[in-house]
Amino acid sequence: MIYDVGEERVNKVLKIGRKYLSWIQNSVLEGDLTPATFASLKREVCKVIKDDYDSVIFYTWRSERYTSREVIGKEKGSSEIFI
Amino acid sequence: MIYDVGEERVNKVLKIGRKYLSWIQNSVLEGDLTPATFASLKREVCKVIKDDYDSVIFYTWRSERYTSREVIGKEKGSSEIFI
Repeated sequence: MIYDVGEERVNKVLKIGRKYLSWIQNSVLEGDLTPATFASLKREVCKVIKDDYDSVIFYTWRSERYTSREVIGKEKGSSEIFI
Repeated sequence: MIYDVGEERVNKVLKIGRKYLSWIQNSVLEGDLTPATFASLKREVCKVIKDDYDSVIFYTWRSERYTSREVIGKEKGSSEIFI
């Protein structure tokens, strides 16, 4: 989950995100969700953002087998998916 | 490519990123790269960031078949991969 939202909504979006996912770095969270949990996360996010200004992107992949993640510099958060 | 870097390095990192990838939203770029091009992007990023402070994450997937992308709110940039 990667968000680019107005300053006044950042805390709200981050708070919702942290209920479901792990904080990775500034405006980036990661996690392993069921379809139902993912749906409720999106519902909550929809309620707080301004559709014509804010942008929240969800990248989803069914298995880590075809996806990899590489960090250059400092690993700020901790990932549950890519250990 | 998602970056969380010191204010004074944001423009440099964004400039490098835009040489290889499309801007999607604040600190997020996407693109389809060969291994060689990806390696040179990482080399350039390594030269400008501060390892003990900055964080740049590359999520890579070999095929879009197992990965999807969903935007809630406004689509700020334009993706070459997910059309």
